[in-house]
Amino acid sequence: MSNEVVGLYEAIDRRRDVRAEFTGAAIDEATLERVLRAAHAAPSVGLSQPWDFVVIEDLAVRRPFHEHVQAERHVFAASLTSPLAERFTDIKIEGILESTLSIVVTYDPSRGAPSVLGRHAIADAGLYSVCLAIENLWLAATAEGMGVGWVSFYREEFVSELVGLPPGVRPVAWLCLGPVTHLEAVPDLERHDWRTRLPLSAVLHRDHW
Amino acid sequence: MSNEVVGLYEAIDRRRDVRAEFTGAAIDEATLERVLRAAHAAPSVGLSQPWDFVVIEDLAVRRPFHEHVQAERHVFAASLTSPLAERFTDIKIEGILESTLSIVVTYDPSRGAPSVLGRHAIADAGLYSVCLAIENLWLAATAEGMGVGWVSFYREEFVSELVGLPPGVRPVAWLCLGPVTHLEAVPDLERHDWRTRLPLSAVLHRDHW
Repeated sequence: MSNEVVGLYEAIDRRRDVRAEFTGAAIDEATLERVLRAAHAAPSVGLSQPWDFVVIEDLAVRRPFHEHVQAERHVFAASLTSPLAERFTDIKIEGILESTLSIVVTYDPSRGAPSVLGRHAIADAGLYSVCLAIENLWLAATAEGMGVGWVSFYREEFVSELVGLPPGVRPVAWLCLGPVTHLEAVPDLERHDWRTRLPLSAVLHRDHW
Repeated sequence: MSNEVVGLYEAIDRRRDVRAEFTGAAIDEATLERVLRAAHAAPSVGLSQPWDFVVIEDLAVRRPFHEHVQAERHVFAASLTSPLAERFTDIKIEGILESTLSIVVTYDPSRGAPSVLGRHAIADAGLYSVCLAIENLWLAATAEGMGVGWVSFYREEFVSELVGLPPGVRPVAWLCLGPVTHLEAVPDLERHDWRTRLPLSAVLHRDHW
């Protein structure tokens, strides 16, 4: 098999959603740019490239987000009953302050509008494009020896105000990024008995559902 | 740089949204399984893996979809004025019948519910996970020497009924997959003067928008 096949599958298999393993070490600008270029090379509906990337190092921005996430953690915890409630107490859900930086990835529905080719029947198609960019970023960071953690314990309005997003621009992801001590072989949520991964056969259908 | 870095960036850079270059040649089962495994290895909110893959070879399913897409093409065309209207007539928007097979990728919000870790504040987080799987699939197919084309000229209700999706399961993508004569170096929509790709600098912000 080619380098391309081997290298790609290696990145896909090693990739983890990182919380505890960030070292906080610096990321050189060339590496960060390669990772962002990978994201920006993603496919997008009507070539609209409706994403933006806000790279956040400033702790004056990250700290209030961290506090907000702690509050949302309590909201979720309050919804749980035993045994999930006990399991959740041991699960780390973010590495906002330990990671080197954060990247907020956003969706701008006005980019390329009104005639976005391929979006007239499916309004969410633009949002989907942003997620494709996020996965490229995640794989690139993994291949570069870093880790990424997607934090989703937040209210969108809070992030929009904190980061100063223009009206109509929607935050899609808050990603923590940086060098790691290692990547775990098994996802955190599986190691903590939260959920077990399904076999491929469980989600595969032929010709009809 | 490692094989992983080189191989991954090669797949990301070569990947195209394919319409005209499908050969229709067979895909062996081992290759198809590697591509689907790559998709299934994607990150997902709360490890919910809320995707399903319906692999469709049957032309009795693909043909009616093809007709539906033609009708939706006319809907979009009718919304355009000059010069976009003229440009659109030359743009091929799908390779449903020429490609080897189609894969419908869906989102099941009930998987792992009600306690999906990381989804209590952002309902769309599950939908985002499905898109991450789609990008893994796309890159894997590219590395394997195939092409993928995401067709989004359809109404979700039509696909749900055609493919027999259970209530509550939402179609996210109709992907055409298969060997190709080649991958174009420049996206179709750029070659047809529909849109020009933005430089990374246009979508990059530091600390605040």
